[in-house]
Amino acid sequence: MHSPRTDRILHQFLNARLADGSLADLTVTEGRFRAITPAAKAATPPPGAIDLAGKLVLPGFVEGHIHLDTSFYGDAWRPHIPCTTGFDVRERVAFQMQNLAQAAPMEERAKNQLELCIGHGSLAMRSHVMVDGVVGLKHVETILAVREHYRELIGIQLVAFPQSGILSSPGTAELLDEALKLGCDLVGGLDPASFDRDVKGHLDVVFGLAEKRGVGVDIHLHDAGTLGLFEIEEIAARTTALGMQGKVAVSHAYALGDISADTLARAGEMLAASGVAIMSNAPGNHAFPPVAALRKAGVTVFAGSDNIRDSWWPYGDGDMLNRANMIGYRSGFYEDRELEAAWDVASHAGAKALGLEGYGIAVGAKADFVALKAEHVPEAVVAVPRERTVYRGGRAIARDGAMIG
Amino acid sequence: MHSPRTDRILHQFLNARLADGSLADLTVTEGRFRAITPAAKAATPPPGAIDLAGKLVLPGFVEGHIHLDTSFYGDAWRPHIPCTTGFDVRERVAFQMQNLAQAAPMEERAKNQLELCIGHGSLAMRSHVMVDGVVGLKHVETILAVREHYRELIGIQLVAFPQSGILSSPGTAELLDEALKLGCDLVGGLDPASFDRDVKGHLDVVFGLAEKRGVGVDIHLHDAGTLGLFEIEEIAARTTALGMQGKVAVSHAYALGDISADTLARAGEMLAASGVAIMSNAPGNHAFPPVAALRKAGVTVFAGSDNIRDSWWPYGDGDMLNRANMIGYRSGFYEDRELEAAWDVASHAGAKALGLEGYGIAVGAKADFVALKAEHVPEAVVAVPRERTVYRGGRAIARDGAMIG
Repeated sequence: MHSPRTDRILHQFLNARLADGSLADLTVTEGRFRAITPAAKAATPPPGAIDLAGKLVLPGFVEGHIHLDTSFYGDAWRPHIPCTTGFDVRERVAFQMQNLAQAAPMEERAKNQLELCIGHGSLAMRSHVMVDGVVGLKHVETILAVREHYRELIGIQLVAFPQSGILSSPGTAELLDEALKLGCDLVGGLDPASFDRDVKGHLDVVFGLAEKRGVGVDIHLHDAGTLGLFEIEEIAARTTALGMQGKVAVSHAYALGDISADTLARAGEMLAASGVAIMSNAPGNHAFPPVAALRKAGVTVFAGSDNIRDSWWPYGDGDMLNRANMIGYRSGFYEDRELEAAWDVASHAGAKALGLEGYGIAVGAKADFVALKAEHVPEAVVAVPRERTVYRGGRAIARDGAMIG
Repeated sequence: MHSPRTDRILHQFLNARLADGSLADLTVTEGRFRAITPAAKAATPPPGAIDLAGKLVLPGFVEGHIHLDTSFYGDAWRPHIPCTTGFDVRERVAFQMQNLAQAAPMEERAKNQLELCIGHGSLAMRSHVMVDGVVGLKHVETILAVREHYRELIGIQLVAFPQSGILSSPGTAELLDEALKLGCDLVGGLDPASFDRDVKGHLDVVFGLAEKRGVGVDIHLHDAGTLGLFEIEEIAARTTALGMQGKVAVSHAYALGDISADTLARAGEMLAASGVAIMSNAPGNHAFPPVAALRKAGVTVFAGSDNIRDSWWPYGDGDMLNRANMIGYRSGFYEDRELEAAWDVASHAGAKALGLEGYGIAVGAKADFVALKAEHVPEAVVAVPRERTVYRGGRAIARDGAMIG
């Protein structure tokens, strides 16, 4: 992760509403909160201070799972092509290659998507980037350059993602290693059972590279039911064995939505003990990990947009506050504490899963925040106000969805 | 339904994008489209003509199920109160009575909600209004007055809704009859089995009143599985027996989401033959009617917001384009034709279910429409652009969510 531009200028914000409902004045220097004090409501505010007038202040949203290399957002509309029969990852990857061959340059598409996300308030992100025998390291090289270009605006972690499998796509293990050397922060994986047909072989490569390069792991796992659960058990066991607690995530983990309450309780204990985080985008017509039960068990559950208008589906708006709404809506979260939990998944829990330093509205934390009109977090989650100002290190960088300057 | 203010002034709209992607010029007089012609792109546009500059033009959205009397939208935040154990309609009704006793005046709350809906583009609506032994006709009288106040802006059908059951709440049958005399357009019902414990007795009253007063029927049915299916069968049989095809709807009909594909196929045939429409809001964590399968069987499936920030749940934004997005998201609709179907549920199918005259973008139809920036319907459904202008009878009445004037 890169640091935001340190900015020696003093920024003062008056009458910020905190999550507890109180009003506070915020002082920022060198990109961090230096003081958070009860609102003074002075008759003559200090010159240059910005009056937030009771707007709710939330830490920058954490986009925990996105694909910067494959979206067509801002490019021409590409109608979704259905699989011949049912859902087939290999066929979808083939459609993706066809679509990408006709698309606008990747750099441009990635920038469109990044500005969509930043404009809504995401200031930290984990993006998977495709690595395989066909595209080699081309996607990684492009997205590394895009990350560099945006480093003052958003912190981006990159996962070297074996989109075509590891054992299925010869040379991929070496390419993943090369991607980590180039600057990827984590090594990815993809359905070790259903895609590569070899759980042990796939995980040997993934965890072998993680150990060799000292990086984290984030594995795409769509496999359902007991098969998916078996793979999660294997991932948790390897995480514990390597002392990688807190550095491993399973994305999607649909299996956790399929199993009985008893089995889930055991899985939750195992995930909490091994420090393996679970990422979900709260899919629309698919079982997904039970957010409340997993959180109660002590599991870090975080969220991401996943695909945004790409070859996998046409949905996605890059708004992690709207994602919190969907997490809540799909989970049957109605009470205030539940709506707060939905928000936590898109913010603090994401920061924990990504291992972010200096996250939150707190003295010493990075002054990366979003101001919007809501009385409190539950209202923000149900209303999803579109009017927002996004601050990076205390500097306004986006307003109402559009980048400033 | 009331007619919009007839307006003899000529309105001309240039370069409107139609659903088929073509650009057209629209001529409106007396509140209706008089001509729709390929865009002339004249160097000197007629004076007073509005250039829509390629914006997509959609007919006004149809809000098919809402509760104008019970929302707290725009009033103080009221935290959701959970039921003591599981979900209990009676307990929820009791919470609702507590909440309403402390709320802002109903008229004000109903207006807040109506302007939210109109601001997003809904120009026709069906609202259920509570009738029971405690509130009597008070809600109906208030909402009838609100309807009158808004008649130039939106057409509203009112359902006399027995929120506390019919047989369970003595005097309700007579009150429902009175509500119809006062001006309600349909008679409602509520879970004849699980709430009133007497399917035949409940439906005797509902269909008896419908026949006596010559009005339609719209029944809330949450009952699951084979019990709910049995009630749907009874409703369909009575609809056919009374020749009421096209005038009866079942709202929620969760049971249709619980049953096997074979049983659903038979239910679909029965619903299509009896002309009973199905309303769904695509709930977040609950099985719901399979939209594609029912549409394929010839069933009219329409949509509504249902509750908006009330005693039942905190969600809801009054945006039927966003509801179309949720219908699609929850149904796994990815292809263009599927996204168009999701939109149809929130527009043309709603107009059919409500029996609206003059609906659509067509010569002779009412010039009730929404202009927004999208290439086509599929893009509008996934992007849900918030910037919109809403026209009633050719007159702009709302822009970007706020009423004009």
